[in-house]
Amino acid sequence: MTIGVLGAGQLGRMLALAGFPLGLDFLFLDPVTPASAARVARQLVGSFTDQRLLEELARSSDVLTFDWENIPIEALRELALGGAEVPVCPPLAALEAAQDRVLEKRLFEKLDIPTTRWAAVDSWLDLKRAVETIRLPGVIKTRRMGYDGKGQAVVKSGEDLERAWSAMQSAPLLYEELVDYDCEVSIIGARSRSGEVTIYPLNGNVHAEGILRLTRAPFGPERWWRTAGQYLERVLAHFHYSGVLTIELFVRGGRLIANEMAPRVHNSGHWTIEGAVTSQFENHLRAILDLPLGETRAAGHCAMINLIGELPPLKTILAHPGAHLHVYEKAPRPGRKVGHCTLVARTARERDARAQRLLREVAPGVSIP
Amino acid sequence: MTIGVLGAGQLGRMLALAGFPLGLDFLFLDPVTPASAARVARQLVGSFTDQRLLEELARSSDVLTFDWENIPIEALRELALGGAEVPVCPPLAALEAAQDRVLEKRLFEKLDIPTTRWAAVDSWLDLKRAVETIRLPGVIKTRRMGYDGKGQAVVKSGEDLERAWSAMQSAPLLYEELVDYDCEVSIIGARSRSGEVTIYPLNGNVHAEGILRLTRAPFGPERWWRTAGQYLERVLAHFHYSGVLTIELFVRGGRLIANEMAPRVHNSGHWTIEGAVTSQFENHLRAILDLPLGETRAAGHCAMINLIGELPPLKTILAHPGAHLHVYEKAPRPGRKVGHCTLVARTARERDARAQRLLREVAPGVSIP
Repeated sequence: MTIGVLGAGQLGRMLALAGFPLGLDFLFLDPVTPASAARVARQLVGSFTDQRLLEELARSSDVLTFDWENIPIEALRELALGGAEVPVCPPLAALEAAQDRVLEKRLFEKLDIPTTRWAAVDSWLDLKRAVETIRLPGVIKTRRMGYDGKGQAVVKSGEDLERAWSAMQSAPLLYEELVDYDCEVSIIGARSRSGEVTIYPLNGNVHAEGILRLTRAPFGPERWWRTAGQYLERVLAHFHYSGVLTIELFVRGGRLIANEMAPRVHNSGHWTIEGAVTSQFENHLRAILDLPLGETRAAGHCAMINLIGELPPLKTILAHPGAHLHVYEKAPRPGRKVGHCTLVARTARERDARAQRLLREVAPGVSIP
Repeated sequence: MTIGVLGAGQLGRMLALAGFPLGLDFLFLDPVTPASAARVARQLVGSFTDQRLLEELARSSDVLTFDWENIPIEALRELALGGAEVPVCPPLAALEAAQDRVLEKRLFEKLDIPTTRWAAVDSWLDLKRAVETIRLPGVIKTRRMGYDGKGQAVVKSGEDLERAWSAMQSAPLLYEELVDYDCEVSIIGARSRSGEVTIYPLNGNVHAEGILRLTRAPFGPERWWRTAGQYLERVLAHFHYSGVLTIELFVRGGRLIANEMAPRVHNSGHWTIEGAVTSQFENHLRAILDLPLGETRAAGHCAMINLIGELPPLKTILAHPGAHLHVYEKAPRPGRKVGHCTLVARTARERDARAQRLLREVAPGVSIP
């Protein structure tokens, strides 16, 4: 069986590596070459909107999926209208909601999932009104195409506001409260095409400059996991979802507040490769192929550290007892995710001590909260 | 970095899958096409003795290794004589000993590793003398090219003896006692080029018709593991070994008796992919690249079941909670290993109960001893 994937980044690469043991083949479509996933599987090089390539991908695949949520939906819709019978998983409606912060906020509200106070902003007047209601400080975000802290600006004063407006006004925007959170968490789960659902333990995340640096799992009290899991299940059910879905949340005073969702495997779930019985990548594949889902239980106390910018020498990481390294084979570039490493320990305390040692070497400046 | 591999079977395939996360590339040489490993990496198709292809492999690789112990050594020697500077790991001397049962027995004796009583057999007279000394029942084995029970015959009577002799006399042979063992075990460890050594927990193996069906690990009392580990360390030190090495042993009345060795990753170590902190495949790569070795601790109680002949439907296996499937993408054929599955449980009892349920579906006739 062949899985067609739009996007050939590290998420696609790890999907393929999870699928090879199951005997699956992969074909990627991505304009970038050499792409991370193309080091391990075949790639069609071209635009996500190239109908000829999309048709070739659809013809060669048993199911289509994506490793990036900003792919153009219209092209996939045209493909379906053009008569391609290959299923696209996760569903396009979920992808559409994840691409637009306004649709996403409305979805959370509709499903009774607490989220930040927000307002859509299409003019300077909208923005001023939003700030009057929601107050400063806040965050201005582009409605579309944001990731890794791109397309957003924190505003704390009237001056910040004017500066951000003049820089961002060309795109549809959203203003939302800046949450003074105690910690950030994410919840990841899978739903198969026939409706089986499984949910991973909760992840505790640390960002710096908008980029995820460290995830620890399982994280927080069971109550948080149950609440976050219920929110996730509502979204999965709403879309008759198939595949892996992630919701990122803030925790403030014990209350969980949804920040955003990603209709795909997620950076905060990379620890599941070694740390859970079944990885998020394998469960995404099982879900979209309608196979039985695998156990999501954690096998220990896990930490995942992102390698940003450039890769340290292999030895630096492998000398740490129990450290697992995942290289993405991407060219080094400041702020770019080029790999990650994972530790699985028997206790949370041991995990934190070992993660702290590894952080000192590979991510100076990031520390265990 | 590129790893050149002679042999592109399932062992090579799993080496490549363990190496991709480390950013390693692989190039295989094998006469068979399509080969299992070539589904995930590049293959040079041709004979192991083709000097042109061997030179191409050496030129393209940072280190050469093999996934099959019966590759012709002479060709690799010629390559070295021809000036190729690429290291070959494990060392050819270890490969040579593993290829010839007589050299192997002498090695065990030299290193004070208990083995079966045996005699080299080049004539009917040799065979009769061997049987007089060692007695019936016994096993006649070809000195070379035996695997998965091929190239051997159990003899219990004079009639068996004559029949086996007339079938096998064209090849150099060995006669050895048939050990009435209590159980079969194997020990797997790695030694890096700079001499770091690590040893996995002991494996308990069940064969049927000469083919491994089931491995459980960790297996047996700690005393067995220590003894087997000492034997393995002697062989590793003797050869200034680099890579993974396996010794299979019989246990009779609490005594360990070496049966044979394999200078490579081993079927009885497949459980280490999910069940140990670092898999045998990753540790083989770390060892031959002289990187720090990874932890070999078991993360739980593991069972590995071989899928022989043909693959059951994916669903059959994946419906078992916590079951991991590894498909080799080889054409079905009676007696052929086409995949394996692994279970990791929290207790030995839970592991055995779950393995028994899985065995009933995928390997009827095989049961937990």
